[in-house]
Parts: sequence; C-alpha cells; structure tokens
Amino acid sequence: MGIVVQKYGGSSVADAAAVKRVAQRIVETRKAGHDVVVAVSAMGDTTDELLDLAEGVSPLPPARELDMLLTAGERISMALVAMAIADLGFTAQSFTGSQAGVITDAVHGKAKIIDVTPGRISKAIDEGHIVIVAGFQGVSQDTKEITTLGRGGTDTTAVALAAALDAEVCEIYTDVDGVFTADPRIVPSARKLDRVTYEEMLEMAACGAKILHLRCVEYARRYDIPIHVRSSFSRLEGTVVAGSITDEAHQEASMEAPIIAGVAHDRSEAKVTLTGVPDKIGFAARVFEALAGAQINLDMVVQNVSAVATSRTDISFTLPRSDGQAAMQALAELREEIGFESLLYDDQVGKVSLVGAGMRSHPGVTAKFFSSIAAAGVNIGMISTSEIRISVIVDEADVDAAVAAAHTAFDLDSSEVEAVVYGGSGR
Amino acid sequence: MGIVVQKYGGSSVADAAAVKRVAQRIVETRKAGHDVVVAVSAMGDTTDELLDLAEGVSPLPPARELDMLLTAGERISMALVAMAIADLGFTAQSFTGSQAGVITDAVHGKAKIIDVTPGRISKAIDEGHIVIVAGFQGVSQDTKEITTLGRGGTDTTAVALAAALDAEVCEIYTDVDGVFTADPRIVPSARKLDRVTYEEMLEMAACGAKILHLRCVEYARRYDIPIHVRSSFSRLEGTVVAGSITDEAHQEASMEAPIIAGVAHDRSEAKVTLTGVPDKIGFAARVFEALAGAQINLDMVVQNVSAVATSRTDISFTLPRSDGQAAMQALAELREEIGFESLLYDDQVGKVSLVGAGMRSHPGVTAKFFSSIAAAGVNIGMISTSEIRISVIVDEADVDAAVAAAHTAFDLDSSEVEAVVYGGSGR
Repeated sequence: MGIVVQKYGGSSVADAAAVKRVAQRIVETRKAGHDVVVAVSAMGDTTDELLDLAEGVSPLPPARELDMLLTAGERISMALVAMAIADLGFTAQSFTGSQAGVITDAVHGKAKIIDVTPGRISKAIDEGHIVIVAGFQGVSQDTKEITTLGRGGTDTTAVALAAALDAEVCEIYTDVDGVFTADPRIVPSARKLDRVTYEEMLEMAACGAKILHLRCVEYARRYDIPIHVRSSFSRLEGTVVAGSITDEAHQEASMEAPIIAGVAHDRSEAKVTLTGVPDKIGFAARVFEALAGAQINLDMVVQNVSAVATSRTDISFTLPRSDGQAAMQALAELREEIGFESLLYDDQVGKVSLVGAGMRSHPGVTAKFFSSIAAAGVNIGMISTSEIRISVIVDEADVDAAVAAAHTAFDLDSSEVEAVVYGGSGR
Repeated sequence: MGIVVQKYGGSSVADAAAVKRVAQRIVETRKAGHDVVVAVSAMGDTTDELLDLAEGVSPLPPARELDMLLTAGERISMALVAMAIADLGFTAQSFTGSQAGVITDAVHGKAKIIDVTPGRISKAIDEGHIVIVAGFQGVSQDTKEITTLGRGGTDTTAVALAAALDAEVCEIYTDVDGVFTADPRIVPSARKLDRVTYEEMLEMAACGAKILHLRCVEYARRYDIPIHVRSSFSRLEGTVVAGSITDEAHQEASMEAPIIAGVAHDRSEAKVTLTGVPDKIGFAARVFEALAGAQINLDMVVQNVSAVATSRTDISFTLPRSDGQAAMQALAELREEIGFESLLYDDQVGKVSLVGAGMRSHPGVTAKFFSSIAAAGVNIGMISTSEIRISVIVDEADVDAAVAAAHTAFDLDSSEVEAVVYGGSGR
C-alpha cells in the first residue's frame, strides 16, 4: 500500500488530549498498512497568541520576523504529535517546512509553494518513521528565509506533500463531516456530498465555502491528488474531491449525476459603485489600474450600457471588505482626473452562488435560479457567471433566504437532517 | 570598532516591556559604533511551559522531539527582539541556531558545539543588520538534526559566536551586577570583582558559583574571548573574565593583585561512603568503573589509609544529589563481589571552596582557610585541592558560617554593602 498524507488543523491538536487522539488516528492508518505523512497546524489559539506577543512589542513588525515568530507554532504541535505517536509504540520524526523541503517564493506572510524536495521525508519513511511536517511554512528558494503560506496554508502543505510523494490520497481532517450542498447552519437539510470535482470545489471555495482553501484545491487539481475531506471527530467517510469535469469518465458519469453540487454564500464582500463615469476610451482602464496599483483583488465587475443622453455610465464591483478603505481612497484620488459623479460604498451585501458541472449541459438552470430567488422575495443586485457557476449579489439580510430557496429549487434538500455535527450552532 | 556579542537570558526578555528594554540596550551599543550580535534565551518560563506540554502528551518523550519542541522557545524571543529593534529604527534579522551555523554533536538535550560557521551572520552584519541568534540550540554535524545544548547553553552560544566572529568582547547580561567574592545572600559584605582570570572563574563555576556555566568559560578560555558579566538592569560595569594565570602580564600584575578571588559554595552534592572495603588491588577501580558505567560524574574522592589490623579501607566521594539513587544502586550490586562492610549516603552536606590564583605563590593560605573555619566552630569532612582552589565538605547547616568566616579571614569584606541588587532576598 502507498503513502497517505493527512492534515490536522489547529482545533484537532488544541490540547494534550486532542494531540493524543490525533496520534491514535495516525497510528490506525499506519496499522492498516499505509506509510503516513502528516501536515499539522499550530495548536488551537497559538497563532493568535503569538500575534498578540508581536503586537505587544511592535505596532508594525517586519514580515520576516513575523514569519520567524509564527513558525514556532507548528514546531510545538508537530513535536508533541511525534511524542504522542512514540508513546503508542511507533516511531515518528517531525520536520520543519524547511527540513521537509517545502520551497516557496520569498513573499513573507503569503508565500507560494514553488517546489517540494522531500529527500529527508522519503528517507524517514524508508527508515520506518511516521513523518510529521509543520504546515503553513516553508523556506524561500534563493534567500533561504523562513516563510509562511498565509491562511489555510497547512491544507496546501498537505496537498503539496501528497503531490511530491505521489501519495494515494490527501486526507484533510476538519471539524465537519465533509463538503455540504449548503452551509447546514443556514440550510439544516443540506446534504453531505460524497464526491465533487476539482472545478466545482474551486468555485465553491471561491464563493465562500470555507472548508477548503482555493490554493489547496488548485494544487490538488494540477497534480491530480484526490482530497478526502472528513471529520477528525468521527469515522464517517467524508467528501472526496477528485476528477475534472473535462474527464471522459466524469462526462459519462455525469449523465446521472446531480446537476448542481451546491449553493455557496459569502458575506465578506463589499460593493463599490462609481456613477456618472464619462464613457470615454481608457477611463474604465484607469479605474482598474488604480485599484490594481493598490493591490486590491476585485471579484465581480459590472458596467452598465451608457445612457445615450449623457454619455456617462456606472461601474460597480465587489471586493473583500478588508480592502474597502484602500479602494475608496485610491478612487477618490482619481475623481478630478476622471470626473465621475459619485463614489458609493455598500458593505451590507452578500453573494449567493449556485455551483454545478451539470449546468453546462442543462439549459434553464439560470432561469430556475433567478426565479427561485425572486419567489423568496429577494432582489438581485449584480450577476456574474462562469461555465459551472452563477453568482448574484443580494442584500446581506437576504442571503439566508436566497440560499434556502435555491437549495430547495434544485432538489438538494435531504429527507433527513444529517448535519448533526453543527449541533448547537445550527439554529 | 569591532563586533560586540551580547547575551540576554530568559529573565531579561520575560515580557514585552523587557524585550523593549533589551532592544534599547542593543541599539545603544550599535549607536556607539559597534556591530552587534545577540544570543537570546527563551522568554521567562517558556521552556518550563513547553516541558509541561510535553509531559502532558508523553511520560518519556523522545529526545529528538523534545529538542524540536524546546527550540521553539528561542524562536519566539529572538523574533520579538528583532521586531522591537526595528521599531527603534534599526534593522535586525533573527537566525535559528541552524541558520547561524552553530554546529554540534548529535547528543540531544546536551549537545556540544563543535564548530560555528557564521556565513549568514557575517553577511547580515555586512548588510547593516543587527543580528539576533537563538541561544541554546544548534544543528548536528552529520545528521542535520536540531539539538539543544543543555543548561546555560545560551552563554555558550554567545561565547562561541564571539569566537567565530573574532568579537572584541562577549557581554553576558544577567540579573546581578557581576561576579562577587561570595554569594551576597550569604555574605552581605561581598564585593563585586572587577576582573577575574579564566581559571579562577572556572574553579568558581565548578564549585557552585552559578553566574556562568563551566562550558561557556572553558570555551572563552580556549579562544581567549573576554567575557563581561553585567546587569541588564543597570549601567554599571560588571566583572570582566579574561586573562590566564599563566600569562606573563598576569604574573606581573598579580604581585599586587588580591591573593583570593572569592569563596564559592555548593549545596547540590551528596556524600557516599563505602566502609570496610578490602584493600586489594583493583577493588577501588571496580567501584569507580561501576559508577562510570552508570554515567555518574564524581567530584571529590577520598580514600583512607587502610587499617593495618583489618587490611580494610574506607572510600568516600561526593556527587550530584540527582545522581545519588543511581550511584547507590550501582554500588549495592557490587556488594557481593567486593565484600565491603557498609554503604552510607549523606545528602546533608555542602561544599565551601576558596579560589584564587594568588595561593600558588602565597604559602599559608590552606592553614588560614582551615583555621578560619575551625574558629567558626565548623567541622571539616573531606578536603580536595587544585593549584588555585581549596574545597572542604562540611555539614549543610554550616555552609553559611564557613563561607562568612573564610570571606572575613581573607579580607574580602567590603567596607560598605554593595550588593544592593540582591535587595529583599539578601541575607
């Protein structure tokens, strides 16, 4: 049998008891005959505690030193997991990102993995060790500086290790049972998906599903690594993310497959509108250049047809709320040059997205989606689509209603409420 | 001006305020025109907290993983110090032991430094950075495993860096003003020494003076690096440890130098006595082989002349109390083979040592030492001497009286009580 890579997040190793549970689980996989490589996050609140320490010392700590500081977190958790495994009679060795050969670019705080050179890991596996690797961290290619990968980095570490080691599967352990057709806190009848394609998972992640990070899914897709998202608190099978919508196998299978994988939502965006922008060549480009210059990532962009009478148009776009202030400032500075009429900011918006590979071959999905939302009495602000996704911007207060309406309209509701894991927090 | 290496211990970086104070001090040295390299320990109780974590997970954690865990401590403190320096307008870069080129043997938990290859540090200095290095840690030469140096390791890191960088001085910052003629908590009139030779400092460290660790002084002596022991809470000059008693300069200077550097004491030892050991060739050797086999380091050893009537002798030795149980077990196993009469253990003993390079050229020191102790009504158990040291074993309850008596007899008492830093805990 081959190599299984497992990822455990901070909540899975929050204290000594949790660390021991994780060790038990790892050892079970080893007993089943697999070589096991584990990527682990910092314990519980460690990262926040380290950030607090940094804040106490400096209002604006250098990014290099912040990475040095934060990487202490996984160093602690990985050593503890290795110790707990040793207690169970198996040998384990922990490795930092650098030791594990996780090579990144040099962008501190959000480095990208360039390559994984797993020489030491492979040697440790050959020597019979279970291997524990620090998630979220790496070492820069040329300067040999310690880097961190940013939010969700440990998922990416796990998938990158799985790719470099040609693993059978990358298991991502989390606190829910898998990927659901909608957030069960909003839709109690949401169903767990047994299987979903990389493309669908990418769209869902991009549209607010928080279970897997975009970069991790992108990495898995590129190297064709199956991801098994499952709960560290149960033995249930979770959701397997694998296969592309362009695979022949998928094309055939999808004849009977559900059209829609799920309904995602996102409350982290804001909408900016420029009204009365003179409809001249290059003006829209200036707007988006200014935003790019301020390092702002836009999501949806809509430009109206210009009114004949005035030769002016409106431009709206959405962006992360955290970038709102920077965007407004960059645009205010353009006012004189471009001469738009007003600059509006609305952070009381939400995005609801319907994702499904089947919509490519099933006309009428868009109409059904819009009419279900309308029937729920919800007004649609902006619209954007991809080959396998339709997204709409609605009032933030209407997000739940729109998600539930779409979920029901596409027959995604389960006959029984499965999402027991959400317990107290699920209404 | 050249390079100054500074060492700050855990109490000097115990919290954010302390870290900022240390940064201020480092920057002052830089402003004075020196390049600065700093070795820093883990913050306050971090190491103990990490050990508690390990204990919670495993009763007997593998040494490799324990080192991996503990080295997170300095990673945190060094990054914070670098951040605080950046806030003061200077640039600092922190480096792990491995990055700093601290090469050790592979003995986890008490590795010895074999070499320092300071390529990255020198480069960082050339680029204008203040360099912060994790104390207490290194990387093993062949296996590239993370190691720790054991107790007092950061002092040794600092001196090793100073040697490798050909620094002007290695400043060891601590919570007292320097090296004193005796522990001011026992002798309030103890004086701070301005200067002491490596050999005297070695003897004092070996005899219980806790201010510097033996290995650090040995390292400094081998590479002739002056150590300046001083307080991180004051601007006073501390004690410079430099020069050998065999230096010509010292020989000349010592004509006027004080005969005695100080009186050290140690309450960490126990005394073991074997009575009625048959006085046959090889029997004593068997005893010490057995102790060596149990990894026990002996300190003083005394064998009586054997009684003519019985052809039996007594053997006494002292050893760290922590090794007491192992030693007694090893010796009990020899009882049948050797046939000694009894095996006695006494941990109510203390060692009082007089240290001074001048005693080589001043006869009568031994007599004066013994008579001062006798005059204080203290009984002497065992005696051992070196070229520049006389040590006696006394009852533990008599240690303070013996130290005070010897201190006074050799005119070491100050006219005023200088040791204000000991404040509340003094006497």
